[in-house]
Amino acid sequence: VKLAEDLATLAEFSEAGPGVTRLAWSPPHIRALRWLAGRLEEAGLDAQLDAAGNCVGRWAPNGAEGQAIGLGSHIDSVPAGGRFDGTLGVLGALAAIELLRERAFVPTTPVWLMSFMDEEGTRFGESMFGSRAFVGEDLDAYLSLSDSSGATVGQAMQDAGFSPDDVRAARAVAGLSAFLELHVEQGKVLLDAGVDIGVVNAIVGLLQARVVVRGVSDHGSTPMPGRHDALAAAARMIVALRDWARDESDMTATVGSMEAWPGAYNTIPGKCSFSVDLRVPDRARFATLRERLTDLVAGIAAQETVEVGVEITDFIQPAELDERLLTLIERAAETEGASHMRMPSGAGHDSQVLAPYVPTAMVFVPSAGGVSHSPEEFTTPAHCELGARVLARVIELAQGDAELLGPDA
Amino acid sequence: VKLAEDLATLAEFSEAGPGVTRLAWSPPHIRALRWLAGRLEEAGLDAQLDAAGNCVGRWAPNGAEGQAIGLGSHIDSVPAGGRFDGTLGVLGALAAIELLRERAFVPTTPVWLMSFMDEEGTRFGESMFGSRAFVGEDLDAYLSLSDSSGATVGQAMQDAGFSPDDVRAARAVAGLSAFLELHVEQGKVLLDAGVDIGVVNAIVGLLQARVVVRGVSDHGSTPMPGRHDALAAAARMIVALRDWARDESDMTATVGSMEAWPGAYNTIPGKCSFSVDLRVPDRARFATLRERLTDLVAGIAAQETVEVGVEITDFIQPAELDERLLTLIERAAETEGASHMRMPSGAGHDSQVLAPYVPTAMVFVPSAGGVSHSPEEFTTPAHCELGARVLARVIELAQGDAELLGPDA
Repeated sequence: VKLAEDLATLAEFSEAGPGVTRLAWSPPHIRALRWLAGRLEEAGLDAQLDAAGNCVGRWAPNGAEGQAIGLGSHIDSVPAGGRFDGTLGVLGALAAIELLRERAFVPTTPVWLMSFMDEEGTRFGESMFGSRAFVGEDLDAYLSLSDSSGATVGQAMQDAGFSPDDVRAARAVAGLSAFLELHVEQGKVLLDAGVDIGVVNAIVGLLQARVVVRGVSDHGSTPMPGRHDALAAAARMIVALRDWARDESDMTATVGSMEAWPGAYNTIPGKCSFSVDLRVPDRARFATLRERLTDLVAGIAAQETVEVGVEITDFIQPAELDERLLTLIERAAETEGASHMRMPSGAGHDSQVLAPYVPTAMVFVPSAGGVSHSPEEFTTPAHCELGARVLARVIELAQGDAELLGPDA
Repeated sequence: VKLAEDLATLAEFSEAGPGVTRLAWSPPHIRALRWLAGRLEEAGLDAQLDAAGNCVGRWAPNGAEGQAIGLGSHIDSVPAGGRFDGTLGVLGALAAIELLRERAFVPTTPVWLMSFMDEEGTRFGESMFGSRAFVGEDLDAYLSLSDSSGATVGQAMQDAGFSPDDVRAARAVAGLSAFLELHVEQGKVLLDAGVDIGVVNAIVGLLQARVVVRGVSDHGSTPMPGRHDALAAAARMIVALRDWARDESDMTATVGSMEAWPGAYNTIPGKCSFSVDLRVPDRARFATLRERLTDLVAGIAAQETVEVGVEITDFIQPAELDERLLTLIERAAETEGASHMRMPSGAGHDSQVLAPYVPTAMVFVPSAGGVSHSPEEFTTPAHCELGARVLARVIELAQGDAELLGPDA
């Protein structure tokens, strides 16, 4: 198993500068995908780039047939990102297959390995192009998005030798009986708990919004009772949002940006704007988020005699992952002698796209310092390999699971 | 009495543009002061510009002698200011003297009328140059301040035909037995209360500070318990500052500007900075402000596991005004059939500089909409004249007050 070597090799496919910069459809990304296809062939898979720029490798030794177990993630990166995010899920899957081959294990059904196109979405502003094509979503609008230079997705595809008209041909999810994604955690939960394997039971839904509070700007000598202070009202909203998330389990609320106008020492702000980022892992609570956010800020605005508006800027449904697969992952971790815990993923992943179509689960390994999307992103070689070994064990254990591997009804 | 006409005339001394722009020592300001000196001479006062650029007129009819009752304010303005701030206190005082002359009233002691140089402080960043020279403060450091073009106060004085070496000669406060300043309120207290005359019993002390909160920047998927969120902590501080001021009487707390870094939707702010403007009218509470501010933010920072620093940027002691003069103003208002109420001034004034040296009080008249430092600044002609009539009545009433007008012990 050459996992560490493969990770180092793939990190070389990058624009100049710190860390790894491998934006979707860019020359380093396309070269990396072609290298990957070659590497999969070398490992005994039948590999090609599909119509959406996904690299898909198929391992079907000795006439294995029926629906496949899918593995994989993505190898595109954010600007100045790290060498593990996504990449470990692809190369770890390859290592898992090579481990199985070393053990002379022969699966009864095929195993597919995918590297999905443009998971990050940094270049064109929307994410998960490849997995959305793989499940057959309509991507016409996506193809018209443009990057900062004005080039559209369609043009970027053509520059890379692909045809935007063929994207529908990438639909292949029906060939899978299950999908399993290994990924670095991108947080500190495993690290803080001292646990090796995160068994991801849900991928959080995300609501992002901008809240604008309008009061009345006035001189700082204005007595307190008559004020309509946009910033004081916003501050109460920010505290209340934080307290709401604290009172729930597995929910986060983040206010990351904030501005107040006119912004003078001796002037009561007449306008204030702040961002809101809310995440919950379950659909039941996610369905109430928008209304609860609106009620919370409206209630405070009324008390503070100011006006408030909420504009939703992003709204991504949570994914609940497959219980049977989660149990298999736990058994696999135990077989490898690894500690494990269930946890939601606070970040989005290709698994979120696949989960409505096919039983899906994710395996997390710890990130040093919880850092990701950074040149300092790091997961120890031992944890990288452990992730691959757990994937391999899940494939072994799944063979005994007729219901999981049986033909789709 | 030509008060309305004088106000209109003086408004013409301005740079081009909206409202009145008559910055300290600027050609329009110096021309306005020279016009004023001529106008005072015309009204029977002995007037000149002193060594600090103050216009001082002395009315000593029929051998009135001893310490004088001082009246006045300032005629410099902020950029794009109005025609009433300061100016009404000077021209209203002139109107009061002309009223007394119309009534053939002869005071037993002189009356002085001052227009103090650079009350606003906008040009050089420090305020009240003229009144500080009048009371004999050391202004060596002030003379070295420079404006946005790099010109120092000393150079601006020389350009206007004054010698910075002579500033000490402007000291003249010992000639006064009392000082009385008429001013527009610059707020809405009188307007909201439907009262004509504000009897200003104190000028608030001002503490301004910048608070910097340092936490740890992290991804928005970080669980709530492990966060060190600089903005959430700052929001609690802002609410607590507001609640503190609400719980006190006659105190204001304003957070006017605020920034959070790095400022992304999905990133917990690692640093946050905000301004604080605290005002109280009494020395006892003012003396505790700095410590209470520091304790308040430090207490919240400890609970929020962030660090906090407080940098005091301005610290101006409050002035408590003279009770005997306040009573005279109330009697004067009643004589004129005007409603009155005691109130602190939330803004700074020359009276704040004079109060430690001589019994001082202020008279406020209402500002339409509470607006000041704006071309829209407006006080009705009726309220302008009422202010002048109250000043005249105070001078009449003071004649019977041997203690007030007696020689300084």
